[in-house]
Amino acid sequence: MHSFKELSAIFTRDFNTSHFPKEPQSLYRANDYFLGLGGKRIRPVMCLMGNELFDEIHADAWQVATAIELFHNFTLIHDDIMDDAALRRGLETVHHKYGSNTALLAGDVMLVVAYEYLNKISSSYLKHIIAIFSKAAKEVCEGQQMDMDFEKMEDVSLNDYLKMIELKTSVLLAASLHMGAIIGGAGEGNCNHLYAFGKNLGIAFQVQDDYLDAFGDPEKVGKIIGGDIKQNKKTFLLIHALETANDAQKKELKALLHENNEDKVQRVLQIFRDCNADDWAKELKQQYYNKALYHLDEIAVLSARKQPLIEIADFLIQRDY
Amino acid sequence: MHSFKELSAIFTRDFNTSHFPKEPQSLYRANDYFLGLGGKRIRPVMCLMGNELFDEIHADAWQVATAIELFHNFTLIHDDIMDDAALRRGLETVHHKYGSNTALLAGDVMLVVAYEYLNKISSSYLKHIIAIFSKAAKEVCEGQQMDMDFEKMEDVSLNDYLKMIELKTSVLLAASLHMGAIIGGAGEGNCNHLYAFGKNLGIAFQVQDDYLDAFGDPEKVGKIIGGDIKQNKKTFLLIHALETANDAQKKELKALLHENNEDKVQRVLQIFRDCNADDWAKELKQQYYNKALYHLDEIAVLSARKQPLIEIADFLIQRDY
Repeated sequence: MHSFKELSAIFTRDFNTSHFPKEPQSLYRANDYFLGLGGKRIRPVMCLMGNELFDEIHADAWQVATAIELFHNFTLIHDDIMDDAALRRGLETVHHKYGSNTALLAGDVMLVVAYEYLNKISSSYLKHIIAIFSKAAKEVCEGQQMDMDFEKMEDVSLNDYLKMIELKTSVLLAASLHMGAIIGGAGEGNCNHLYAFGKNLGIAFQVQDDYLDAFGDPEKVGKIIGGDIKQNKKTFLLIHALETANDAQKKELKALLHENNEDKVQRVLQIFRDCNADDWAKELKQQYYNKALYHLDEIAVLSARKQPLIEIADFLIQRDY
Repeated sequence: MHSFKELSAIFTRDFNTSHFPKEPQSLYRANDYFLGLGGKRIRPVMCLMGNELFDEIHADAWQVATAIELFHNFTLIHDDIMDDAALRRGLETVHHKYGSNTALLAGDVMLVVAYEYLNKISSSYLKHIIAIFSKAAKEVCEGQQMDMDFEKMEDVSLNDYLKMIELKTSVLLAASLHMGAIIGGAGEGNCNHLYAFGKNLGIAFQVQDDYLDAFGDPEKVGKIIGGDIKQNKKTFLLIHALETANDAQKKELKALLHENNEDKVQRVLQIFRDCNADDWAKELKQQYYNKALYHLDEIAVLSARKQPLIEIADFLIQRDY
């Protein structure tokens, strides 16, 4: 069995090669540049761990892991265009460096190359893997569209926000684990529980993400706190606050969403605290974490094999950065 | 055997259904809208014809044809964003109607759905088909990047332009025929000749396209003549003129590329005529057409089976609209 750290180190080493042709350089240098920015490689490692839960890691799991990481980076390149983000991991985004058109194409071609990696695996489960991968890919697009729709809406219900997070963030984690499990020969029942583990973990992960952006230690998180608040982003905290605030608080909060004064972040945070959004978020995270662990528990393999997944789950939801 | 017209009618009827989920409607209505704009459906029919060249049309050929048409429309949606085109087939482009971000996502998800259609075919040739499809998909992206690169260059050689057209236009026609042939059980030699038929036909088709934009009958073509000239687009005609014009003509032509006076189109056309670019283009088209027919001739099937392909080839390069 391997820990997340071990698998991440091996994957990162192997992934750190060009996945694209040389020419036209004007296109593929954008792809190489973006992949060179790095990342935590959580999703591909989830695929490897899903595989190792049931068997020794198969060569095919590395191909699928590579496809997953390429897919994830394709979504990031396109998301950065949509958000007109200037920076990604502290460096220039692709569309800022090479222009929107090249960034658009670089993303497109990265998705195609992801499918080329999938196409290298055994025919015995190729169809099944492509089906899971494509379903998740569609759902990620749907989640991104919902996220953009929400930006224009004043009130978003917690249920709708949960649905969006599930699509935009969770299903890819879940599908990564699931595809690894298929390669490991897992049966349908085990696959379903592993998928549910990933989906619930993904939501807990996003709650923590939203929490850290508001209440994290800026030195540990490595960025200024309140980025989501400044951008009026819908988050678990904002949605809960809007749903539970009294009339005066709600009025102030809505007014704050329309201004950009210096004390905006502090004032929004105060309302969050007054509505107990911080404690509520911690509890919500715990609920989804518990659901995730329940499904992991239900998987019929020796519990020692589950240890690496428990460790990464603990890390993802307890991290303070 | 079926004619292009017959296959096009059947394909269009079958294709005219929604290929996407209902929700989120804010995303998928963009996909449905764009597919509703219609089109000649040349590429999917090429796949069906490539299949019927060797056998009765197999159900899998319809799935692959659908994937090809979805892929083609994905490229059109994204191309329209890159060109910031307002109209497609006389109606609003997706990004003009629904915004660039939704258009970007609508294209992305259309590519994923194309792979979902591919994934429905027999496992016996799934890997082969995905490999051909993905190779063509990458090449189309590469061709689009080259096309954008050329826009910023003053001088583009005929060879480089040919390479770009091959990637952007020809390989998808060729791959469509090739995938149909694989489903029809064709051997490697026959597949290679059919692919070469498609590639050469694609170039002849583009020469005709460039020719019609400059010298076509506006009533027949259905649009104002000289669109490419107004946009300073690299075309076979412009490249030939720049390569063969005398110093005075070249100087005038380059000056015209930097202005937008009312008589621009007429003056550029006059230089084209003075350089015999019109006759040269007709001959170039004939050369590629002959190469295409040579490869069709080399395919080892009864010549009666080739008749529909000869008819569509004739139409594509002789059309005056």
